[in-house]
Amino acid sequence: MNRDSFAAGERLVSPAYVRQGCEARRSHEHLIRLLLEKGKCPEDGWDESTLELFLHELAIMDSNNFLGNCGVGEREGRVASALVARRHYRFIHGIGRSGDISAVQPKAAGSSLLNKITNSLVLDIIKLAGVPAVTSCFVVPMATGMSLTLCFLTLRHKRPKAKYIIWPRIDQKSCFKSMITAGFEPVVIENVLEGDELRTDLKAVEAKVQELGPDNILCVHSTTSCFAPRVPDRLEELAVICANSGIPHIVNNAYGVQSSKCMHLIQQGARVGRIDAFVQSLDKNFMVPVGGAIIAGFNDSFIQEISKMYPGRASASPSLDVLITLLSLGSNGYKKLLKERKEMFSYLSSQLKKLSESYNERLLHTPHNPISLAMTLKTQGEHQDKAITQLGSMLFTRQVSGARVVPLGSVQTVSGHTFRGFMSHTNNYPCAYLNAASAIGMKMQDVDLFIKRLDKCLKTVRKEQNKESNVSGVDNYDKTEDVDIEEMALKLDNVLFDTYQNSS
Amino acid sequence: MNRDSFAAGERLVSPAYVRQGCEARRSHEHLIRLLLEKGKCPEDGWDESTLELFLHELAIMDSNNFLGNCGVGEREGRVASALVARRHYRFIHGIGRSGDISAVQPKAAGSSLLNKITNSLVLDIIKLAGVPAVTSCFVVPMATGMSLTLCFLTLRHKRPKAKYIIWPRIDQKSCFKSMITAGFEPVVIENVLEGDELRTDLKAVEAKVQELGPDNILCVHSTTSCFAPRVPDRLEELAVICANSGIPHIVNNAYGVQSSKCMHLIQQGARVGRIDAFVQSLDKNFMVPVGGAIIAGFNDSFIQEISKMYPGRASASPSLDVLITLLSLGSNGYKKLLKERKEMFSYLSSQLKKLSESYNERLLHTPHNPISLAMTLKTQGEHQDKAITQLGSMLFTRQVSGARVVPLGSVQTVSGHTFRGFMSHTNNYPCAYLNAASAIGMKMQDVDLFIKRLDKCLKTVRKEQNKESNVSGVDNYDKTEDVDIEEMALKLDNVLFDTYQNSS
Amino acid sequence: MNRDSFAAGERLVSPAYVRQGCEARRSHEHLIRLLLEKGKCPEDGWDESTLELFLHELAIMDSNNFLGNCGVGEREGRVASALVARRHYRFIHGIGRSGDISAVQPKAAGSSLLNKITNSLVLDIIKLAGVPAVTSCFVVPMATGMSLTLCFLTLRHKRPKAKYIIWPRIDQKSCFKSMITAGFEPVVIENVLEGDELRTDLKAVEAKVQELGPDNILCVHSTTSCFAPRVPDRLEELAVICANSGIPHIVNNAYGVQSSKCMHLIQQGARVGRIDAFVQSLDKNFMVPVGGAIIAGFNDSFIQEISKMYPGRASASPSLDVLITLLSLGSNGYKKLLKERKEMFSYLSSQLKKLSESYNERLLHTPHNPISLAMTLKTQGEHQDKAITQLGSMLFTRQVSGARVVPLGSVQTVSGHTFRGFMSHTNNYPCAYLNAASAIGMKMQDVDLFIKRLDKCLKTVRKEQNKESNVSGVDNYDKTEDVDIEEMALKLDNVLFDTYQNSS
Amino acid sequence: MNRDSFAAGERLVSPAYVRQGCEARRSHEHLIRLLLEKGKCPEDGWDESTLELFLHELAIMDSNNFLGNCGVGEREGRVASALVARRHYRFIHGIGRSGDISAVQPKAAGSSLLNKITNSLVLDIIKLAGVPAVTSCFVVPMATGMSLTLCFLTLRHKRPKAKYIIWPRIDQKSCFKSMITAGFEPVVIENVLEGDELRTDLKAVEAKVQELGPDNILCVHSTTSCFAPRVPDRLEELAVICANSGIPHIVNNAYGVQSSKCMHLIQQGARVGRIDAFVQSLDKNFMVPVGGAIIAGFNDSFIQEISKMYPGRASASPSLDVLITLLSLGSNGYKKLLKERKEMFSYLSSQLKKLSESYNERLLHTPHNPISLAMTLKTQGEHQDKAITQLGSMLFTRQVSGARVVPLGSVQTVSGHTFRGFMSHTNNYPCAYLNAASAIGMKMQDVDLFIKRLDKCLKTVRKEQNKESNVSGVDNYDKTEDVDIEEMALKLDNVLFDTYQNSS
Repeated sequence: MNRDSFAAGERLVSPAYVRQGCEARRSHEHLIRLLLEKGKCPEDGWDESTLELFLHELAIMDSNNFLGNCGVGEREGRVASALVARRHYRFIHGIGRSGDISAVQPKAAGSSLLNKITNSLVLDIIKLAGVPAVTSCFVVPMATGMSLTLCFLTLRHKRPKAKYIIWPRIDQKSCFKSMITAGFEPVVIENVLEGDELRTDLKAVEAKVQELGPDNILCVHSTTSCFAPRVPDRLEELAVICANSGIPHIVNNAYGVQSSKCMHLIQQGARVGRIDAFVQSLDKNFMVPVGGAIIAGFNDSFIQEISKMYPGRASASPSLDVLITLLSLGSNGYKKLLKERKEMFSYLSSQLKKLSESYNERLLHTPHNPISLAMTLKTQGEHQDKAITQLGSMLFTRQVSGARVVPLGSVQTVSGHTFRGFMSHTNNYPCAYLNAASAIGMKMQDVDLFIKRLDKCLKTVRKEQNKESNVSGVDNYDKTEDVDIEEMALKLDNVLFDTYQNSS
Repeated sequence: MNRDSFAAGERLVSPAYVRQGCEARRSHEHLIRLLLEKGKCPEDGWDESTLELFLHELAIMDSNNFLGNCGVGEREGRVASALVARRHYRFIHGIGRSGDISAVQPKAAGSSLLNKITNSLVLDIIKLAGVPAVTSCFVVPMATGMSLTLCFLTLRHKRPKAKYIIWPRIDQKSCFKSMITAGFEPVVIENVLEGDELRTDLKAVEAKVQELGPDNILCVHSTTSCFAPRVPDRLEELAVICANSGIPHIVNNAYGVQSSKCMHLIQQGARVGRIDAFVQSLDKNFMVPVGGAIIAGFNDSFIQEISKMYPGRASASPSLDVLITLLSLGSNGYKKLLKERKEMFSYLSSQLKKLSESYNERLLHTPHNPISLAMTLKTQGEHQDKAITQLGSMLFTRQVSGARVVPLGSVQTVSGHTFRGFMSHTNNYPCAYLNAASAIGMKMQDVDLFIKRLDKCLKTVRKEQNKESNVSGVDNYDKTEDVDIEEMALKLDNVLFDTYQNSS
Repeated sequence: MNRDSFAAGERLVSPAYVRQGCEARRSHEHLIRLLLEKGKCPEDGWDESTLELFLHELAIMDSNNFLGNCGVGEREGRVASALVARRHYRFIHGIGRSGDISAVQPKAAGSSLLNKITNSLVLDIIKLAGVPAVTSCFVVPMATGMSLTLCFLTLRHKRPKAKYIIWPRIDQKSCFKSMITAGFEPVVIENVLEGDELRTDLKAVEAKVQELGPDNILCVHSTTSCFAPRVPDRLEELAVICANSGIPHIVNNAYGVQSSKCMHLIQQGARVGRIDAFVQSLDKNFMVPVGGAIIAGFNDSFIQEISKMYPGRASASPSLDVLITLLSLGSNGYKKLLKERKEMFSYLSSQLKKLSESYNERLLHTPHNPISLAMTLKTQGEHQDKAITQLGSMLFTRQVSGARVVPLGSVQTVSGHTFRGFMSHTNNYPCAYLNAASAIGMKMQDVDLFIKRLDKCLKTVRKEQNKESNVSGVDNYDKTEDVDIEEMALKLDNVLFDTYQNSS
Repeated sequence: MNRDSFAAGERLVSPAYVRQGCEARRSHEHLIRLLLEKGKCPEDGWDESTLELFLHELAIMDSNNFLGNCGVGEREGRVASALVARRHYRFIHGIGRSGDISAVQPKAAGSSLLNKITNSLVLDIIKLAGVPAVTSCFVVPMATGMSLTLCFLTLRHKRPKAKYIIWPRIDQKSCFKSMITAGFEPVVIENVLEGDELRTDLKAVEAKVQELGPDNILCVHSTTSCFAPRVPDRLEELAVICANSGIPHIVNNAYGVQSSKCMHLIQQGARVGRIDAFVQSLDKNFMVPVGGAIIAGFNDSFIQEISKMYPGRASASPSLDVLITLLSLGSNGYKKLLKERKEMFSYLSSQLKKLSESYNERLLHTPHNPISLAMTLKTQGEHQDKAITQLGSMLFTRQVSGARVVPLGSVQTVSGHTFRGFMSHTNNYPCAYLNAASAIGMKMQDVDLFIKRLDKCLKTVRKEQNKESNVSGVDNYDKTEDVDIEEMALKLDNVLFDTYQNSS
């Protein structure tokens, strides 16, 4: 509503009230102006009213929402379904242009602003989360793996001779595949066992660099966030090796934004050595739907090169999600989530420790891993493998999601490469174990339910294994509460056991 | 977004594109300004984008959406559920104040504007629909019956001696109850049969006025839209009687806005005689959910008195619905709906005529009823009553809604008054019949399905009645299409027959 | 999705996963079943997913959502605007039938269920909130005033001779108008001053009953929740008088559901004497938009009579709002809100006391009022009236909503009756004062902002009144924070002062 | 609602009505079952009610919507913002698994089903649109360019020696970049001029194949839909060359699904020769937001290899959009859109012809291009280049989007390769021209407005160029209507001209 509209409004109802309403409107506009001018995440989250006003204002700057537009091109932002238009707040043109995913679209000033602001906000949050030295980043509507691929493809043009990527082993398929897809040969560096932890074998890295020759190496591809007992790579040392040998360094920081430790490693790595880009998942760090990642770095022009590597326009959907989320939370809201995550990690840790000990198991000592924990599964009796798989299946059926049982000796071939001890990041980890993580957004209730159900499952498995043994478990959990889930689970147990056995 | 925001935007993406977006925004604002200044329904419907921008702009003028508001009253527009807030576009304060449903709320400039504009738009549409002489109206969040009650309650204060309401009979409970609830004694004027039509007995009205004495009569309560074979009351003549005797005249124009004939009767009545207020349903005329009505009239101060009679605030929901609907349709869209309705009436009329004749029945000749039609049900054999009820039940089960079978001799007592021949508007209509109407929004497909299913039901009923008879029906309808509905219906037929028999 | 669909799903993705999904679905269905079977508010609130599933399931039981429906009636639930359909979750048919707002609609089984369940839930909550003896209630889409009118209109039919309503004075227009609109003569019983409190003059009530004769009295119309220094009526004693004299008793419990004290008064009144119905606002007690009320009582048949008095169908919108709200909150959520309100009342009380004393004012001692507080405004200097009005205007401009300044000697005529000392519930209250209330949903931030802004306004007013005086106010509030609001307010002060002076 | 819930419902309202509602529900379920069983696009579009029921049912099969779920993994589908959750219908887990974008997710049976069904529907539509021989396809949440890159990266593993991609020139950056990004060297085959058309130089292709040797060639990368005067490549002949030389063939069918001619070329190419995959944009063919593509082919295992190349999960957003769109439209709705597009193409063609002749220009004769048209811009006087650029700028300012002016002699370097005559697909096209296209969803009003505005712009440009000339233009267009846009445009003309000149 413009000045004339307000004047007309004053004639319809009392001028004083309309003027008060009009003044109140300015508070919303003030927030919007600050955002556009500073490009920073507001401290306090916006309410939905301001947020939707903002999105609406942006959307009507796109040509598909012009009232007088006539389109004679091949892509005019027309939408067949009103449901679809609405769910995208009428942003239809996506982000980027043929040449560059960060470029401005003449047809879509609103979407272009949305894209710029989102990237600016995300940059602000990365600084706040522990990498103040970051200078540039952009959201890309691809998951972490494909985003890593894009980084590798960009490096190819700078290092035409390179064939290899040095990769301290982490047993997650998409990490490995990101290199294969880009057309490179991963050089797997096995981890070393230090105490319970699996850590980067720096000497092996250095030896490989010597052996292959720096020019033949596209980059070192290291990892922060990972499942215990693996811990984040020794980024500082790797960064120094890279700097010294003139080898690029790409960090997979998948769900590391949520951990100040992971972020600190990146900040330090960049300070003392070389990190060219670090890639993180949007969904795992910002509680948005799967499908986006952030590519960030310390050198504007390299990050821009990557953004220019993406051929064509791209979905604005992940950008929109993270924009809505950050504006709703505000930086204070996001910090609060980070703090709660840390607290839940401690809580999960202590509860799991208690439980494991009651079953003569042990919480692995992995102090360098700030997110994931592992509890041994040593005492599962003779048919241990079956018992462990069954445990995994039972947990799944009982709606415990994300708990991962890791048996010994699993072998898997991924894109032609055979991994012994797959899932455990090493050929021969000393024991089977179960992983649980404290990720952003976890609630105390998640931990409590998990511990209760795990207790029940362990008890059941033990009973089956060892009819005579008298296991007690953690008796202080109320068994009555969770009856519904248990009943449901019993029906499914057999069906799922089979599936689980085949899939894992 | 204000000037500063756009300036900031220009620094983020190209100034030229932002400026184009900013200019495009003005087209939306222009429409909003016109609406506020003229208070008329736009000719062309608005698109959702403009509509939502407008609603959003209004909503942020309400104090519950002020970013800095602190509330220490007993009603602060707080909302517990985000779903609820959203579905009301954050308009929480309703409309009106303690004293007057049309009054402005200091706390809610936006809701107040919404209310004023809605009433203004609705007034515009009533003029356009055939009552150009109307001067004042307001939307009230009560259905037609309760709105009539409010009119009667208002008149009570002007006519303290009056006890009676003169009411040409129409067999719809809520019409009758509207008078009972207001505390008056309805004086039922039986209709006279002219050809097939049931029409107002003007002489009986005049006689009653003489008999009871004008001062003892609160008003005449007449009706336009109704089920055939009753037709709209003779409004002009009634209006003249009222004018001459100094008796107020309230018209129940329930679903008459959709018919130019009904509207014309009101216009003429007001021109030549007296009509104090006419009341119409929102849902039946404007395709919105049930729950609102419009009270309109030709004398501002009387209409205002009614609005001041409503004690307390009221729901803004019906006003919001009709506002959204009219802005979406535009006056052209609404006129188109009126035109299509008229066409469907002709189509339904001709199809029903054809069908009725194929069963040796007859479409009643009711040229004064522009909306409802009736087809005789004379030849249903010996157990006619049962057959007719069964027909009604079968149609219901076959998802024909709104078709009404009217048997002979039904007697019903409503609030102490016994109606013979209930549902037929007269004590002894010559034959049983079935009603169907062409109401706003009806599609050709509705007519076709109705005729097809009615054909099938009639055939079934006849067969059961008369095993040896050879009825043919309308064979040109494709029997194969509607198989699913038929199958489903067969399952339900018995259950529903019982219910239907008891309820009707 | 039915069994066949799941089977098909199992062929598309893994049977085990589909089966798990299918089992998980049952948890949602289980909650729905419990609700339908028990008709009670669930203890824990439902998540949006279950809630929307439930609403969706209900909606598709309405004929306007039948895929094969053909409508030939005058009201078929057609909707012109998709926005409107969506915001009502496709419930278009409203609630009730011509004869009865609680009746079942054949065309709309879903809406009918919605209506029944809502009434059942609301009954459950009223019990829980302190009136376990309640037996029947229904939601009506009219605000409290009009709902009281409906009660009075129903009583008229039982007490044809009655002309008067005995009404212990409460200065709120809609309470008074509810009786006028129903066509009765309110007999105002002035309150008596006990300490600072204004309380029911029981002797005057009894005298009036004798004087007018019970048969001429329609009912006693008492009030619970009200602005201090008035306190809830002495319900027990009034109920006994009513029981003894055979006079009906209608209680205006406007925003009393949120206070266990108000509810207890009703429970006790009904136990020891007579209460025919008690009426409460939906918006004020359940944090939903304005527009609905609950009519409740202890005698099913009387409550049913009232529901049958409403002529015609009615909006389902308020029922839908309260249903969504209660299912979202659960009874635990609602109880938590009640608890927090009580705590905020204590907090507001202590903060206001502190502030008032720093200005040589006093918090009125009104221990019987559990919701509203009053602080004297005695020391506003010579031009006290102007100062008080200015204070009110300043608070409004500073976005303090709901604070009410009550000057001395205001006279107002409502529907012909002149009230001296209007707004103060008595002809001559000893001093001017300011009201603030702790209503459901209030947050500590509301209290803090209110106290801060009131402090500032009082200081300003004092300075203007008394240039030489040295007032200190509450210095421990941070003055810097609220700068924006203050700046905005300064611009509006003059405009609004004029409006405020004229309107109040 | 399950059986028990319905039984409970029957006790609350009439069993007959509930049962009718319950039966009606089956119609919705029936549609869902058919979809799951057949995997085909329904002929008639679903209404929103069925669609949302279906999405809701799927969503509650995902673990993040399980009521009893406890998550202890690093990715649990938690969502911080309710707005975000809602806009994705609570599908949070995306599609695919680490290894494969088409794989089933144990945690998300609903999302997995959504993915399978979408791919199945899209396959059905591709068949219907003209490629019945297609056997496999999947939706990928990347735009066309990046999807082509993925195809090339997949081929790399099959053809390790290959370095080159044979590419008949088409001047769109993302096509070219798709090969660069994948790390290959595009071998540009210049088009030959046949009449006005630019067509594939088959001889040059064959020569290049010989010259480079098939093993060194990754694939031929051909194009269907393109801007006139280029026309779709000679797919049949290219496919035969590929088959004969054992070279893969990837077709960029960007917006070709909407044209039966483009689709027929693919069908024929695959029949007589070799096409390994064809890639099409979701937004350009299905009127959804930018960001998705379909990779389709005739060999299941190759298409699967591509889907396995995508490392990690991916956004479900584009899949959801196209699913909603296709279910809303039904195959009949989609066919209708295709038909209307064809009609608009004829209309645009005739109108543009008329207009061009009135300015002594000419519509280029490009019968092989079914979507795009070109009109010469020969007679723009001395400063032709400036005039042409100005024309483009003016059209943009007048909200004509998608019209493209192509001057002579533009030179541009893309990723190191210099293109002479850039935008015109050839080094030296005989004349400058203007493109306009008839894309899916275009309305007659688009054409009319375009012609009217183009007329006005041409007139203005001519006047400026040649003050003395008397041009008439198409005078039968109403000049008065479009005044607002013209006014707005005049303000922007200068600003935008500068921008336009620099950007193009």
